[in-house]
Amino acid sequence: MTAPPIAEGRQPEGADRPRQIEAFDRVWLNASLCNMVPRGEDPLGVIEDGAIAAKDGRIAWVGPRADLPATDAPATDCGGAFILPGLIDCHTHIVFGGDRAREFEMRLDGASYEAIAKAGGGILSTVRATRAADEDALVASALPRLDLLLAEGVTTIEVKSGYGLDLATEARMLRAARRLGTARDVSVLTSLLAAHAVPPDYAGRRADFARHVADAIIPAIAAEGLADAVDAFTDSAIGFTPEETAWVFDAAARLGLPVKLHADQLRDDAGAALAARHGALSADHVEYANVEGLAAMAAAGTVAVLLPGAFYFIRETQRPDIAAMRAAGVRIALATDLNPGSCPAPSLLLMLNMGCTFFRLTVAEALRGVTVNAAAALGLTDRGALAPGLRCDLSLHAITRPAELCYWIGRNPCIGRVVAGR
Amino acid sequence: MTAPPIAEGRQPEGADRPRQIEAFDRVWLNASLCNMVPRGEDPLGVIEDGAIAAKDGRIAWVGPRADLPATDAPATDCGGAFILPGLIDCHTHIVFGGDRAREFEMRLDGASYEAIAKAGGGILSTVRATRAADEDALVASALPRLDLLLAEGVTTIEVKSGYGLDLATEARMLRAARRLGTARDVSVLTSLLAAHAVPPDYAGRRADFARHVADAIIPAIAAEGLADAVDAFTDSAIGFTPEETAWVFDAAARLGLPVKLHADQLRDDAGAALAARHGALSADHVEYANVEGLAAMAAAGTVAVLLPGAFYFIRETQRPDIAAMRAAGVRIALATDLNPGSCPAPSLLLMLNMGCTFFRLTVAEALRGVTVNAAAALGLTDRGALAPGLRCDLSLHAITRPAELCYWIGRNPCIGRVVAGR
Repeated sequence: MTAPPIAEGRQPEGADRPRQIEAFDRVWLNASLCNMVPRGEDPLGVIEDGAIAAKDGRIAWVGPRADLPATDAPATDCGGAFILPGLIDCHTHIVFGGDRAREFEMRLDGASYEAIAKAGGGILSTVRATRAADEDALVASALPRLDLLLAEGVTTIEVKSGYGLDLATEARMLRAARRLGTARDVSVLTSLLAAHAVPPDYAGRRADFARHVADAIIPAIAAEGLADAVDAFTDSAIGFTPEETAWVFDAAARLGLPVKLHADQLRDDAGAALAARHGALSADHVEYANVEGLAAMAAAGTVAVLLPGAFYFIRETQRPDIAAMRAAGVRIALATDLNPGSCPAPSLLLMLNMGCTFFRLTVAEALRGVTVNAAAALGLTDRGALAPGLRCDLSLHAITRPAELCYWIGRNPCIGRVVAGR
Repeated sequence: MTAPPIAEGRQPEGADRPRQIEAFDRVWLNASLCNMVPRGEDPLGVIEDGAIAAKDGRIAWVGPRADLPATDAPATDCGGAFILPGLIDCHTHIVFGGDRAREFEMRLDGASYEAIAKAGGGILSTVRATRAADEDALVASALPRLDLLLAEGVTTIEVKSGYGLDLATEARMLRAARRLGTARDVSVLTSLLAAHAVPPDYAGRRADFARHVADAIIPAIAAEGLADAVDAFTDSAIGFTPEETAWVFDAAARLGLPVKLHADQLRDDAGAALAARHGALSADHVEYANVEGLAAMAAAGTVAVLLPGAFYFIRETQRPDIAAMRAAGVRIALATDLNPGSCPAPSLLLMLNMGCTFFRLTVAEALRGVTVNAAAALGLTDRGALAPGLRCDLSLHAITRPAELCYWIGRNPCIGRVVAGR
């Protein structure tokens, strides 16, 4: 039996045919909605007394409650909560071994970078700890961090590799990331970030390592289907050159994998333009991205993923050029960058506040940044808003206006999460 | 049948007298301790395999587990957790009506301060909402915020009035604060902050209001026993003058109430020296305090209470002079400043990270700042460290080194709280 057509909005005037009962699986009532579908002056598309209906894991109907078609589906009373799309953390390094608390402490005690390196600190300490961890251990240490994000209403998360820097460990990180998505009710998108740093075994041979990533690691990871995208870290001092990055991106393109880029985080390396040139889904950090690069991103549809937690933790002072992004029409996303070295912050809600406080994002920009634009940064067109046909991924929050999600610091008002209608 | 005594530690050499069984009420085992009693080079007094015993709500014994006297008291296995003194949040405005999310949003949308004031924003909007709230409503809205602090291991909290600015409402706020201490297992210390701002009914008559606070509000509050201390906001642009503050402090002194001061937050008004001159328990904020003022604080024993959350939220750029504090020997505490206008952050753990990140406090300084020095900022000598005779207020944390409490951002590893031995 075919489901009846989904009726949208108000009944046509003068309709006198028998009232149809919609066969929804579930409806959510007594809630305000942040659709993320702009309406008039409101970029959040707020509907004050709204309703959502799900069918087969998708949103089948959304709108003012008064217009909800008659249905006998079970109803969830949301108690006046706000419903947003399930939140999306589109940039994390949540899978890693060890932590860097000792290094954090040493630095505050005045230790030099040299002394910290000698004591085994820095990214290579995470590489060492990650290489030493088996897949079960990587999953076990990531799960409590993931649970904190889920408790805030996150329903989709991106997870990068990049602490293995060899094929076996990069693959193990990505397998661990995939397992997070079966261990918990969350969509996991994986990004291969083998071109994150130069491993000790390639010391002094950065270009050789980039070639190895392009020629060996990417094809092997792709053959196993472990990566949904390929990422790289371009930086003229501690990352890969634009040329080396291009080798990596070209290898990804040959295998049909979309690309992303850690770009212009510490200085202007023309990373934004590089990302745009390769049609990257996103360019991330971009504190130092120049106006031309941002314009190129807008033209290419490359999303700017802002990471205010890393900006905070490394005490960066250069703010991303939000005015230029607005002028050019660059879509802005916000993410945690959760990682042990530069942002040990398992809270996407905190990033809403930091995005507003540090970068002066508006409330609407911040909230669109963890929903509709975060979906775009992952190349996902099936989520990030509340609209018919999209996945029914919802987050419910006990707030009286959306701004509260950005205003409170370290307070989580999430009271519910719905993943694919359940 | 009595449980067999738990045999702990070494017997005294050559002891042949009958073994004595200590009559503790409870012992905590299998834990590392941060005593906050400096030992050698270690300001935190860490004991790796330690034990604590309580009797009549006090710490009766603390030390290496191997040395714990024999006892048949019930034992709590802490599973390898770290035990710190119960955390102390020594500066909060946790009791208030309404919130300021709308104002936050308007400011990000580019609204001027004038426009926000016209829309009813600013501190007077909180005064209006607080005056409109009855005592039950003030308690009900504060409790969820308090619960977040308790979940982090807080066992003592200071609560200020200051959103009433009239006798009835200031008294109601303080009664609500006292009730928090009966509604939850937490010590509440109250501070009367009637000299917080000039109320609308005294517009243009700041000195008259300061006189009213000194002559009428303080005596009435003291007569009812509602305040444990008196606080004031000295600021040459938007607060009270040093002279007006002195009226308030002198009134407090006549009634035997200790004083505290919001000092040098926005500019150098010689607030630190003013606080020291009046023997204040603490001078709070102190971003702009000068070296002479800090030296005077050290001499007077006035604690510097740093509030990095407010520094963050109002986008302050002037950092408190930590080097001068260290040189002068000023004790440093850290607190949330939890309030709706300049720090809506119900997380003391986040302030540990912000104190380290923004102000470059060491891990030891930060942790002493929410324990032993926070106790000092409240004039409490019975808590803040793990030592015999002190209250048995404990916080238990699932961490492998104390630095983790400062390193993680938005992650709460607290797994237990003990208040007065229970």
